[in-house]
Amino acid sequence: MSVHPQTETILAGLTLEQKASLLSGATFWETEGIEEAGIPSIIVSDGPHGVRRQSTGGDHLGLLDGEPATCFPPAVGLGSSWDPELVERVGEALGREAQAKRVSVLLGPGINIKRDPRCGRNFEYLSEDPLHAGVLGSAFVRGVQSQGVGTSLKHYAANNQETDRLRVSAEIDTRTLRELYLPAFRRVVTETQPWTVMCSYNKVNGVFASEHNWLLNTVLRDEWGFEGVVVSDWGAVRDRVPSLAAGLDLEMPSTNGRTDADVVAAVQNGSLEIAVVDTAVRRLIELALKGHEGLWPDAELDVDGQHAIAREVAGRSIVLLRNEDAILPLTPGAGPVAVIGEFARTPRYQGAGSSQIVPTRLDNALDAIRAAAGEDVPFAPGFVLEGESDPVLADEAVRLAASAETVLYFAGLPSSAESEGFDREDIELPADQVALLERLIEANSRIVVVLSNGAVVRVSDWNERVPALIEGWLLGQAGGGAIADVLYGVVNPSGRLTESIPERLQDVPAYTSFPGEHGSVRYAEGLYVGYRHYDTREAAVTYPFGFGLSYTTFGYSHEVVRVEGDTVRVSVQVTNTGTRDGREVVQVYSALPGAEVSRPVHELRAFTSVAIPAGKTREVELSFPVSDLAYFSTAADVWSVEGGTYVIEIAASSRDIRARLDIQIEGDPSPIPLSVNSTLGEWFAHPVGAPILNAAFAQVLAATPAVGGMLNDPHLRKMAEQMPMSQMVAFGAITPEQAQGLVDAVEQASA
Amino acid sequence: MSVHPQTETILAGLTLEQKASLLSGATFWETEGIEEAGIPSIIVSDGPHGVRRQSTGGDHLGLLDGEPATCFPPAVGLGSSWDPELVERVGEALGREAQAKRVSVLLGPGINIKRDPRCGRNFEYLSEDPLHAGVLGSAFVRGVQSQGVGTSLKHYAANNQETDRLRVSAEIDTRTLRELYLPAFRRVVTETQPWTVMCSYNKVNGVFASEHNWLLNTVLRDEWGFEGVVVSDWGAVRDRVPSLAAGLDLEMPSTNGRTDADVVAAVQNGSLEIAVVDTAVRRLIELALKGHEGLWPDAELDVDGQHAIAREVAGRSIVLLRNEDAILPLTPGAGPVAVIGEFARTPRYQGAGSSQIVPTRLDNALDAIRAAAGEDVPFAPGFVLEGESDPVLADEAVRLAASAETVLYFAGLPSSAESEGFDREDIELPADQVALLERLIEANSRIVVVLSNGAVVRVSDWNERVPALIEGWLLGQAGGGAIADVLYGVVNPSGRLTESIPERLQDVPAYTSFPGEHGSVRYAEGLYVGYRHYDTREAAVTYPFGFGLSYTTFGYSHEVVRVEGDTVRVSVQVTNTGTRDGREVVQVYSALPGAEVSRPVHELRAFTSVAIPAGKTREVELSFPVSDLAYFSTAADVWSVEGGTYVIEIAASSRDIRARLDIQIEGDPSPIPLSVNSTLGEWFAHPVGAPILNAAFAQVLAATPAVGGMLNDPHLRKMAEQMPMSQMVAFGAITPEQAQGLVDAVEQASA
Repeated sequence: MSVHPQTETILAGLTLEQKASLLSGATFWETEGIEEAGIPSIIVSDGPHGVRRQSTGGDHLGLLDGEPATCFPPAVGLGSSWDPELVERVGEALGREAQAKRVSVLLGPGINIKRDPRCGRNFEYLSEDPLHAGVLGSAFVRGVQSQGVGTSLKHYAANNQETDRLRVSAEIDTRTLRELYLPAFRRVVTETQPWTVMCSYNKVNGVFASEHNWLLNTVLRDEWGFEGVVVSDWGAVRDRVPSLAAGLDLEMPSTNGRTDADVVAAVQNGSLEIAVVDTAVRRLIELALKGHEGLWPDAELDVDGQHAIAREVAGRSIVLLRNEDAILPLTPGAGPVAVIGEFARTPRYQGAGSSQIVPTRLDNALDAIRAAAGEDVPFAPGFVLEGESDPVLADEAVRLAASAETVLYFAGLPSSAESEGFDREDIELPADQVALLERLIEANSRIVVVLSNGAVVRVSDWNERVPALIEGWLLGQAGGGAIADVLYGVVNPSGRLTESIPERLQDVPAYTSFPGEHGSVRYAEGLYVGYRHYDTREAAVTYPFGFGLSYTTFGYSHEVVRVEGDTVRVSVQVTNTGTRDGREVVQVYSALPGAEVSRPVHELRAFTSVAIPAGKTREVELSFPVSDLAYFSTAADVWSVEGGTYVIEIAASSRDIRARLDIQIEGDPSPIPLSVNSTLGEWFAHPVGAPILNAAFAQVLAATPAVGGMLNDPHLRKMAEQMPMSQMVAFGAITPEQAQGLVDAVEQASA
Repeated sequence: MSVHPQTETILAGLTLEQKASLLSGATFWETEGIEEAGIPSIIVSDGPHGVRRQSTGGDHLGLLDGEPATCFPPAVGLGSSWDPELVERVGEALGREAQAKRVSVLLGPGINIKRDPRCGRNFEYLSEDPLHAGVLGSAFVRGVQSQGVGTSLKHYAANNQETDRLRVSAEIDTRTLRELYLPAFRRVVTETQPWTVMCSYNKVNGVFASEHNWLLNTVLRDEWGFEGVVVSDWGAVRDRVPSLAAGLDLEMPSTNGRTDADVVAAVQNGSLEIAVVDTAVRRLIELALKGHEGLWPDAELDVDGQHAIAREVAGRSIVLLRNEDAILPLTPGAGPVAVIGEFARTPRYQGAGSSQIVPTRLDNALDAIRAAAGEDVPFAPGFVLEGESDPVLADEAVRLAASAETVLYFAGLPSSAESEGFDREDIELPADQVALLERLIEANSRIVVVLSNGAVVRVSDWNERVPALIEGWLLGQAGGGAIADVLYGVVNPSGRLTESIPERLQDVPAYTSFPGEHGSVRYAEGLYVGYRHYDTREAAVTYPFGFGLSYTTFGYSHEVVRVEGDTVRVSVQVTNTGTRDGREVVQVYSALPGAEVSRPVHELRAFTSVAIPAGKTREVELSFPVSDLAYFSTAADVWSVEGGTYVIEIAASSRDIRARLDIQIEGDPSPIPLSVNSTLGEWFAHPVGAPILNAAFAQVLAATPAVGGMLNDPHLRKMAEQMPMSQMVAFGAITPEQAQGLVDAVEQASA
């Protein structure tokens, strides 16, 4: 188990009290060290989009400002790049910055599924799709950990809302948990072994994540082979001893020894095995040694270099949603441009809560636009970010709009609208901003809307009446420059939506079940989250998952799909058919028409972001294991690949399928073996069971004309096919022994 | 417990073997009698829309034809009347017919909720709404039982599909079960005491309904006070002894003594208490005595009288959905009418399965139309009901349509499409019928579509291109005449939809979860079935719940709503503003904007069907108990009326609200008492807790500036309000003793 040569020696020399002390924090941000035993204390720090080191030791709730740090685009932006290579480079940059701040573990990435657009912390999460979140989550961890700094994969698990987050029980059926909420965690754990995994505050099906033996031991460690430390979210431990027994190694922050004493007492009174304590301590020693030894002695922060990366990444995070008549990019000097909206001057660039960074510097879009335009661009704030709407500001903005050729309108959500700690109640932009937009549209036909928001807002009312719409999400400290880069074509936008933009809040799948009540939230929509819902129901969305425009266009050709052993391989030639260099995000979905179990109409299986110079063609290769086609059989408690003809879709978004190709998959045997509880229909459909049953029926049922008559009448046969074999016994048509004989015969024939 | 004076004496004289024998059928349709003990055998018979007595003793599966009987409109038609008085008269007629056939218990009514339009047995059920199903179910039982004949309320419970019905587990959250799937049963049981309740085949949350102690004993008997016999659906008992222990009194049909022996053995080996057996036997003796004594010696079937009732009821079952330019009613002799569609000649008037009746006679619409028109109306079948489409028939029909002024097109589902025993896979009309309709629309602008179908079909493709649409459902043996009555205005249609007609199958709430898989179906949509879904999400439907047109129009005025003690009373004046006598169905819905728990945007609370002569005004009074406004708190396991301002809607359909009036309801105390697990937000919102907490915070938290700061910052306060009191303890902000002290203070102040 132990990897570090000193671990066992150190463990052997510790007292019970010392062991217990190692399993909770020394301070708010530091693990316990025991100098005489050779166990260093290491520093952990909030993330994920910046290293939020609190030099003064951390206030009680971790809410005070940290030291200045580079604020990279939060996950909502970063994820929109759909580019694991880029995300890995961000991870590397964060790792270097952590080194400069002596931080050994960065508390991120957050990879929870965006179940509902109202979740107040969606800006910290990557996607509504678990493959997307898992692939980018892995890249992030690889990047950070390549620099000798650990990560904390969070929040495990099913932490998909802020309302009542410290108590609510996420009620999720097993299949949905397995297929939607756990796969991103599984991918990151199995691919990258993050140093730590952070349990969430909430309960999962009635049990606190911090006390969830099935989640922490059975699934995370036994099934996925996680080798690191499970750390609590700050304050997530309700009862230390059962948490420890359930696989929670490290309680954070410090409880000043209060709960360590519980551990000691539990071992002493026999209610907690010392072996459990030793296992956790062993993991903590390994973490401390690895963290300490990984630190670089002379690391320093390269503020300018980090800022440049932040700007590049911000440019890759922007999603161009609409661009009628190629109104964008703008040409400097081509006509008077006006900038309207306080967000242009006062950027909203990150969300509130534990991830909030004090940036090393902060660019705003207005300055960057003026620089790009090479002239003084007039500006009107139009509205205030917080507080009462101001008609004077709005009137001024409308006058300005009327005098300009093109209006750049910066709208968005104020900081108070979305935060860790609470959810939104709607997905509306502030009413005064929308009212101003309506007036701007009347005053000027060339309105470019630039949005700043951490999660989806409704745009359906005015979307079709503006020629251009840029989804700017939250872009970190260099986002202002990146927006100017996109507006003026220095950067050709290549971001794609990681969450569907619905027409109305009433259309979102969890509309009636989010955020629950009385300490419980039922994940009523099951698997049907995001595009899995909209596409399966062919329901309208304003913009679909995976969607984003470019200043160039891409053509797909020569699509090939083949199965090679356990791998599905896809290749396609993508041609940049325009006149600008650009990036395309190629997406692969799979579908199984007529599936045996209820499944989304298609699901993302692979994707890649590829740079293609103007006029050039690139051969794009993607692949995924056949096992990713499996569904989870709750009845049999196993993953199972259904055999059949799968449709592999090569796509530019979940609703822009460029090619559909069939593959044959042999699949696993049915996870549910034939038994006396199987229906006649299941028997007739079974390759082994059908001939055995037919032969038996020919003999046995000759004496039972009513049943024979049913089976020969196509109408009545449909009824009969619903009958379990046991029902035939109950009706006296066959004996229990005959039924069991059929089951035995199938077992023998299958063996 | 016993009501009949002889019961205890008879019971005392029975051997164990005799007792066991009484608790299963003597034959397929007869209970066991013991002549020497004075216990008669009684006859039960399938229903509910006719008395399906099988004189030859019943085949093995109960599928053979019965004696001729009056076929009244099945529940899908009857329910559309929205008229408990009418339904009660049908019950009386059925009771008389049962008397004539010596039947003591009629196996009905079926009151399961129409969860999904694909359920193959929806034609046997009343509604997507539990109040509607309960009120009409009660009326049916009252009617039948007033004639000395018993009923069997079925299928208890959560039997909402045919797929895998003998095995499937309906996975339903407690609140949905309590608020949607059980209330109709509760209403009928508490209002009418049906002689028997029939358990369903399926499992409910993993336990067979036939073995479900919570359903059969805790809820049905202990909570609702059911005094009668619980009988199994035919063949629903899997294991006799646990069924008996769980409250299932009578296994049907006979098992030829096989399972009686199990009962005897279980008592003898001590695994089953004799008291359980005695209790069930007592109920069976009462049933047998009551059934036997209730029989009329000389009852005879009045075939003509019953048929006349069937025709009247069929006329009340028809729903006029569309009537542009008052194309209906037709005037005899006003212009050449053509009848097209095989259904006009060969009516589809009931569904297949156990309820199927051999009618005493059978009217078809074609003959009735010819009689009403007073001339020979030409007819073309257009299509065949089953099998390949026939282009010759279609061509002939199109030619006929072109020559007529008005076309009456009879379309619908063939018998093979819907039945007990299997579900539909879609909600489409047969493609050849739709293709023919498209051609008819091209040939003639005056198309009246008359539908025959047991559950909803999609009409959205062509609905707006035909001037009139009549939903004829299944109308029983006299439906042909009733359709002619409506077409020619002899009957002014007054039926209203009991199920929403969706635009597309993809829009139905259970689209992705019906009918489940691997022996399990998750009721994913929860409470949001039918209009509860569509109206809450403001989603498009083709025709809404409660909708139906008349040949006259109705105006609403003088709406008054008031709370009198425990009752909400509604009064409204309804005026027939047209020139024909007619009936209006006045509906009352309640809404609670901003409810504490997720609730449908409104729910049906009362309704009445009222006849109003042309030009007249009727004062309509409706009422319902305040307790009907309760939701079921799963966390506290109690019903709770939330206090607040309810909106009472007086409506002509779920989407035609004529008046909205507010009432103030005091409500129950919160079902969740304040505790250390309550969040600060819950404390601050509590009338007693808030001042106590505020006072305590003023003192205690003065020493904890970080927490104090949080509470004074509106943004951070939102986060803090999510914190359970216990979290404040975990963070060390207050001691466990202080927290408990606050809870104690609230308890004292509330006491």
